[in-house]
Amino acid sequence: MKQKRRAVVLVAHGSRLEAANEEVRQVAARLEERLETPVVAAFLELAAPDIPTGIDLALAKSPREILVLPYFLTQGRHVQEDIGAPLAAKARAYPETSIRLLDYLGKDGALVELLAERLGKVT
Amino acid sequence: MKQKRRAVVLVAHGSRLEAANEEVRQVAARLEERLETPVVAAFLELAAPDIPTGIDLALAKSPREILVLPYFLTQGRHVQEDIGAPLAAKARAYPETSIRLLDYLGKDGALVELLAERLGKVT
Repeated sequence: MKQKRRAVVLVAHGSRLEAANEEVRQVAARLEERLETPVVAAFLELAAPDIPTGIDLALAKSPREILVLPYFLTQGRHVQEDIGAPLAAKARAYPETSIRLLDYLGKDGALVELLAERLGKVT
Repeated sequence: MKQKRRAVVLVAHGSRLEAANEEVRQVAARLEERLETPVVAAFLELAAPDIPTGIDLALAKSPREILVLPYFLTQGRHVQEDIGAPLAAKARAYPETSIRLLDYLGKDGALVELLAERLGKVT
C-alpha cells in the first residue's frame, strides 16, 4: 500500500478500561509495521484520540487517501452514524484527500476461518 | 474436532439491535458447518439465549467438553467476570463435562494478519 500514500484509521468503541484501549493501539501499531503504512487508532468515546483527531493525525502523514476501518464485530448505530458523521465533516474540510469508510471487521467472512483454526488447535 | 465430542459456545455481548445479534448467530452457524461440531451463540445481556441457557443447549448435545469462546475484541470486566462466573456455576453442576473458557477473539495475533489482508485488497 505504501506507494499509494495511504494512511489507515482503526476506529474502536473505546472503553473505561485503559488496558482495552491499549490493546487497540497495539493492534494499530502491529498493523502499521505489517503494512508499512501509517495506522492511527481512534475511539468513538471514552478514550483518546477521538475520530476527528484521529483523522487529523492521519492527515498529518500527507496521504492521498485515508482508509477508515471500524474495529467492531457487529453492525449498529455506532458504525453507521457515529463514525460516518465525523468522517463526512472531515471529507468536506479536506476535499483533496479521499476519506473512505470500509466495512467493519465483523463483516469479513475470513473471521469464521480464523475462529475455526483457533478451535481446531485446542488440544 | 468431531471425534472428541465437543461443543462450542460463542459468547457475545448482545445488542439492542437485533440485526447485530443475528450476525453473531450466523457466525455460530457458519462455524458449526465449518467444524462439523455443535456451535451455540449466547449473549451476556440484551439477547437470548443467555450464557447459562447457551451452556444448557450445548450440554444437550452430550459433549465430553464444551469450549467457550468470547466473541470480544478487547478484554474487560465482561470477559473476566461476567462470563467466568456463570461458567463456574455450570461446571460445578455438571462435573462430568469439561467446560473451558478460551481466550477472547481479540487476543488472537492472526487478527492483525486478517486486517492487513483486507486493507491490502482495497483498490
